[in-house]
Amino acid sequence: MRVEIWSDIACPWCYVGKARFEKALGAFPHRDEIEVVHRSFELDPHRAKGETESVLKMLTKKYGMSEAQARAGEQNLGAQAAAEGLEYRTEGRDHGSTFDMHRLLHFAKEQGRQDELIQVLYRANFAEERSLFVDADAYLVELAVAAGLDADAAREVLADPSAYADEVRADEREAAELGANGVPFFVLDRKYGVSGAQPAEVFAQALEQAWDSHAPLRPIQQNGTDDADACGPDGCAVPQS
Amino acid sequence: MRVEIWSDIACPWCYVGKARFEKALGAFPHRDEIEVVHRSFELDPHRAKGETESVLKMLTKKYGMSEAQARAGEQNLGAQAAAEGLEYRTEGRDHGSTFDMHRLLHFAKEQGRQDELIQVLYRANFAEERSLFVDADAYLVELAVAAGLDADAAREVLADPSAYADEVRADEREAAELGANGVPFFVLDRKYGVSGAQPAEVFAQALEQAWDSHAPLRPIQQNGTDDADACGPDGCAVPQS
Repeated sequence: MRVEIWSDIACPWCYVGKARFEKALGAFPHRDEIEVVHRSFELDPHRAKGETESVLKMLTKKYGMSEAQARAGEQNLGAQAAAEGLEYRTEGRDHGSTFDMHRLLHFAKEQGRQDELIQVLYRANFAEERSLFVDADAYLVELAVAAGLDADAAREVLADPSAYADEVRADEREAAELGANGVPFFVLDRKYGVSGAQPAEVFAQALEQAWDSHAPLRPIQQNGTDDADACGPDGCAVPQS
Repeated sequence: MRVEIWSDIACPWCYVGKARFEKALGAFPHRDEIEVVHRSFELDPHRAKGETESVLKMLTKKYGMSEAQARAGEQNLGAQAAAEGLEYRTEGRDHGSTFDMHRLLHFAKEQGRQDELIQVLYRANFAEERSLFVDADAYLVELAVAAGLDADAAREVLADPSAYADEVRADEREAAELGANGVPFFVLDRKYGVSGAQPAEVFAQALEQAWDSHAPLRPIQQNGTDDADACGPDGCAVPQS
């Protein structure tokens, strides 16, 4: 059964929500049969590559908060992160475009390294002093390698702005179609949706409910026939004439 | 609602089945809300690029038919195709690798031209005298252009054997996971499966059944709360502490 998680690297609740989801998943009896796919969602899609500013300044400018409010928000988020065992720098973080990271996450998905990569990206953004947005390509290659990807291949993806760009946009379109206007957004078996960094118990309940109602494909066929007019590795059915 | 069709260009029943499905779709009242996605399935995945032989010879060799049986099979398939208004050359067709066509179909999907491309590929393979497997790249570029794609972009995809290769393999893995061991294989809303070139009435019934049971995502959330800890275009929720 598949769980899709729409998120953004720049989204604190996504960082926290992933940890809560994983707590539930780790205790779920059928965890080995759950496939997790990360999908792209940019909170700030119009931000240009390389254009960066401090998180506190961005919060005051973009969302019209006072600096005290912005600081208090970051302190609160830091406390929520800490409660999940996550490091979170409440001062000195910066903000920028996450488009290239999403492109790289699609490449990592093909290589079976998506979860590894998103984890190191979150850590880099929320816990490390080095900026993820200044001289980003070099740092992203290092992080890709830390996630088990090939350095040259990652460099190539980053150097070509069209690589996996359509995949990122397709994810974002799909989020809108599914009714998500914020992240994290969890979709279980394309049947249940969980919005936000809910407590682990909510994710546990969602996993159980989705698992219980998960059904194999139901076949629809002509009454009274069993064999289909189809081609397989052993050839094509011969028409009944 | 989404309908996924696993098929191979070299599969006569896929060619016929697509026409039957489209007859049902054309009469379906909600046809404008149905998204059709073509997925890859190679009947002959070990065939090398450029290695070609006549369909009749392939049938006798690979499937152990007599030449008379192979001829009769093609005649019968031709009759089934004709009944759907499709041209079908029962003599003189050849057979080869379809891997590059599937790669190109994934590219076409990103460009919104997948259905156009599969249609011209089927026609080229089943109705045209020119071989689709000899000097294939040049012909495939022509066909891509006929389907509304850019010639240079198609040429680039064809020249790089890794382009969209993972997407082809992912489709094939998914077919196996869904229990498909032959094509065409139709999956409606990831809930109903139709195997083979069933009559149009069966597709009509499948569309109705899938449509009737199609449901939006069911939200799961914490009891008594309405707002989620999430980030959206207008900022992040402030933690309740």
